[in-house]
Amino acid sequence: MRIDIISAVPDSLTSTLNTSIIKRAIEKKSVQVVVHNLRDFAKNNYKQIDDKPFGGGPGMLLKPEPFFECIEKLQSERQYDHIIFTTPKGKVYNQKLANKFSLAQNIIIIAGHYKGIDDRVRETFATDEVSIGNFILSGGELLALIITDSIVRILPGAIGDSGSMLNDSFMDGEIIEAPNYTRPAEYKGIKVPQVLLSGNEKEIKNWKEEKSKSLTENWKKINSLE
Amino acid sequence: MRIDIISAVPDSLTSTLNTSIIKRAIEKKSVQVVVHNLRDFAKNNYKQIDDKPFGGGPGMLLKPEPFFECIEKLQSERQYDHIIFTTPKGKVYNQKLANKFSLAQNIIIIAGHYKGIDDRVRETFATDEVSIGNFILSGGELLALIITDSIVRILPGAIGDSGSMLNDSFMDGEIIEAPNYTRPAEYKGIKVPQVLLSGNEKEIKNWKEEKSKSLTENWKKINSLE
Repeated sequence: MRIDIISAVPDSLTSTLNTSIIKRAIEKKSVQVVVHNLRDFAKNNYKQIDDKPFGGGPGMLLKPEPFFECIEKLQSERQYDHIIFTTPKGKVYNQKLANKFSLAQNIIIIAGHYKGIDDRVRETFATDEVSIGNFILSGGELLALIITDSIVRILPGAIGDSGSMLNDSFMDGEIIEAPNYTRPAEYKGIKVPQVLLSGNEKEIKNWKEEKSKSLTENWKKINSLE
Repeated sequence: MRIDIISAVPDSLTSTLNTSIIKRAIEKKSVQVVVHNLRDFAKNNYKQIDDKPFGGGPGMLLKPEPFFECIEKLQSERQYDHIIFTTPKGKVYNQKLANKFSLAQNIIIIAGHYKGIDDRVRETFATDEVSIGNFILSGGELLALIITDSIVRILPGAIGDSGSMLNDSFMDGEIIEAPNYTRPAEYKGIKVPQVLLSGNEKEIKNWKEEKSKSLTENWKKINSLE
């Protein structure tokens, strides 16, 4: 799989791409991640990538030309299954989208920044519009990284311990996993639940299922209010 | 404001903290961000920070002791308004939480990783449990960065152009902003909506309000399905 990320601040992506699961997946050749600096596709001598919005209003917008140049170049080189826009207008990202994107051969992720992007870029190219949720960030870079991480971690071979992944919260519909504990069994007077030390597999399984059920109900409750 | 982030992979945070709005806010002394490497608080010679879960199951858990050491040290130095845990169990992050956190003097953000953290850490310290949404990431670092970005951008003095912020999508309840366009007025045959070039402020205002209304309705529609 190949993921192209287009950003006006590509330096902000480096650490996350060079650490942890994404780095491991790149090393294992499960994925190739290519970051494009929007400024490299600016036409004029000043490498200008932003300008004031038509119709007035505060803030600066990213200009259309560098995006067209970059995306059209990429499209001339290979076929893309998804061109994903990070935008407050989009569908709130979820595991179904992560699963869908993980099946693709080639995807482009456009990380918006500043006030936004000239809307003609979205109108022309976007196949998927993704929002991070009901809050505002200074740019789309963190969402581009989140999409990348969530895709990469489910690619075959990316996580060594695939059993770990299957037990994760949300893999199985919308189930929250039971709390986990490790050694020491007692620390500062706080003990691990006795059942987990019992060695009784059936009781442990029942305890985990009950905890998981009540945590999932609680999660649904706190997230459906307001 | 001071934000302490505790992470087992602190290197993954560097680029984002050193670029863009967070860097600017640090330079302007609007915020101080201190990253703590969990491994520095590991007790034994091997600097071990993870171990197998009690009761079986795949994956490794982060041990309780390094978190207790780190958080108790920080708490001995100053009072914290919030100790925020990134966990699938938590409340899905939203602008109300960002606004609430931005009013604090000192906060700690705990970035989970791997399979998770020994639950005694959460039981003992968590004042707020925050989820990124209905999908899985390989760790809590990106969510810690998202919380930091969303808080920092609304601190006084962090964004030069505060008018830009007030017009952003979601600042005003759950309103999606109208599409934005900048020069050139025509590019590759695609024209900017005529009204935005008209100079007629009233018509522009009406157009933006109508677009904003229909996009907001559409957003609510696509995000309430399934």
